[in-house]
Amino acid sequence: MAQLELLRDQRCFGGSQRRYRHHSGQLNCSMLLGVFLPPAALAGERVPAVYWLSGLTCTDENASQKAGAQRRAAELGLALVMPDTSPRGPEVPSDPDGGWDFGHGAGFYVDATEAPWSHHYRMHSYVVQELPELLEAALPLSERRSLCGHSMGGHGALVAVLRHPGRYCAVSAFAPIAHPCACGWGQKAFGHLLGPDPSTWQAWDATALLRSGARAIGPDQTAPLPILVDQGLADPFLDDQLHPEALAEAAAAAGQPLQLRRQQGYDHSYFCIASFIADHLQHHARALRC
Amino acid sequence: MAQLELLRDQRCFGGSQRRYRHHSGQLNCSMLLGVFLPPAALAGERVPAVYWLSGLTCTDENASQKAGAQRRAAELGLALVMPDTSPRGPEVPSDPDGGWDFGHGAGFYVDATEAPWSHHYRMHSYVVQELPELLEAALPLSERRSLCGHSMGGHGALVAVLRHPGRYCAVSAFAPIAHPCACGWGQKAFGHLLGPDPSTWQAWDATALLRSGARAIGPDQTAPLPILVDQGLADPFLDDQLHPEALAEAAAAAGQPLQLRRQQGYDHSYFCIASFIADHLQHHARALRC
Repeated sequence: MAQLELLRDQRCFGGSQRRYRHHSGQLNCSMLLGVFLPPAALAGERVPAVYWLSGLTCTDENASQKAGAQRRAAELGLALVMPDTSPRGPEVPSDPDGGWDFGHGAGFYVDATEAPWSHHYRMHSYVVQELPELLEAALPLSERRSLCGHSMGGHGALVAVLRHPGRYCAVSAFAPIAHPCACGWGQKAFGHLLGPDPSTWQAWDATALLRSGARAIGPDQTAPLPILVDQGLADPFLDDQLHPEALAEAAAAAGQPLQLRRQQGYDHSYFCIASFIADHLQHHARALRC
Repeated sequence: MAQLELLRDQRCFGGSQRRYRHHSGQLNCSMLLGVFLPPAALAGERVPAVYWLSGLTCTDENASQKAGAQRRAAELGLALVMPDTSPRGPEVPSDPDGGWDFGHGAGFYVDATEAPWSHHYRMHSYVVQELPELLEAALPLSERRSLCGHSMGGHGALVAVLRHPGRYCAVSAFAPIAHPCACGWGQKAFGHLLGPDPSTWQAWDATALLRSGARAIGPDQTAPLPILVDQGLADPFLDDQLHPEALAEAAAAAGQPLQLRRQQGYDHSYFCIASFIADHLQHHARALRC
């Protein structure tokens, strides 16, 4: 079992905002990780965890510093798990063109199949398998989990839930890259990580997964989980990269409940996330704490 | 009249988080500035403003990104004004020793009297005079103002209120450098900015000001304003630099109401500020919106 090395522990809303380092077997490198434990966990309760997946260029620290999520998480008794957005380190290959939209800080939450990426870029299995095993053994976390994320991470959350029926209790997203097969960011990353054949990309695209029959199914294996999505209408990436309407149409056709809230005036930043994170945590808590 | 150049305008909790650039006549350089306007201001109301003074090494952006203050400010109808922590630019001298505790990012909110500092380091008059004149003319702000700040900025807020009876409606501080004449940070900065004679420092030290008869007096010129101070007990700077007990003793001897809340487990970071900022804004709103 990989060990968690505690680097920082800071009191926050009566809970504990921590930064850990650990070696990841999936990613074959050392990883940094943010975890918020609510007061209930410090008092001995095993609490459910919301996994937050950040977007392009982010680290394990953006959400803990900018989303303002700890306030409501403390009240609701939810832990927050905030991983980095890719494998890192000098041994990990990155964008050959030096871009910020692929490579370090931009792992897209898939399991790469192509060299040289497949040795490190396994962010999907890291988030879905390795982290819960590690954290539920080492910290006062229950086995009830949910996923939320932003942009690249919002999409990673949707894909993880759609690919693993029964594993998650809730899911939501801010401004997800909702149909990566159909946008520049997704095509560039998937072309590297999954190879040039777009047919292999479908299994890692939330809109394509919905079209092919996948559903967000909770632990009780009954009706699909409701998906909550917030999308700012002043988001500069909305037209070219995000395509929430494709996701919403696929969900409607599939009978998958999805609420797409179009937020007038909001952009792609953490100011938007901070404004609505309490709604998302409430959405998660309803399912996690029942 | 100096002009405000709008660099960014981002929707946040129904209000508007803005970044401006302007030329400061007091500081003789170009300055960046954060302003949050609550929904009431966007709807046409002139709203009161809380001036937030940040601490050592911070910029105009730390508080807007990390304090989580906009949520409660939006609810209470308060604007937030978040200036930078010093004059900046290649023409502005900084610490000759290259330290982070004096010079750029560390102006200590005084008006310097000594060369080469006095041409630029006039953060006190910038915050107390120039910014309110500029902003109340250009934005929907009323003339009701208050001051809050952190560390170096918490002390700057206390000094500004104590030096200007009648000008502010409320004041509070997080982990202020409460008696700079008696700590290394203050002695270094004041030695440069105000010269080697410590007797000249007294007029810029909140504890010394209270001892010499200054009081926090609101616009109605009656009883002293209550001062709210939060101090984390796990703050690594508490023993050597902050001296809140000296401030509290001076206030008690002076009949100046001051509530010093000692927060078990909290450190010097924005995780502490975020945890208690709503209490501070409530304290300000009671006085600002009456």
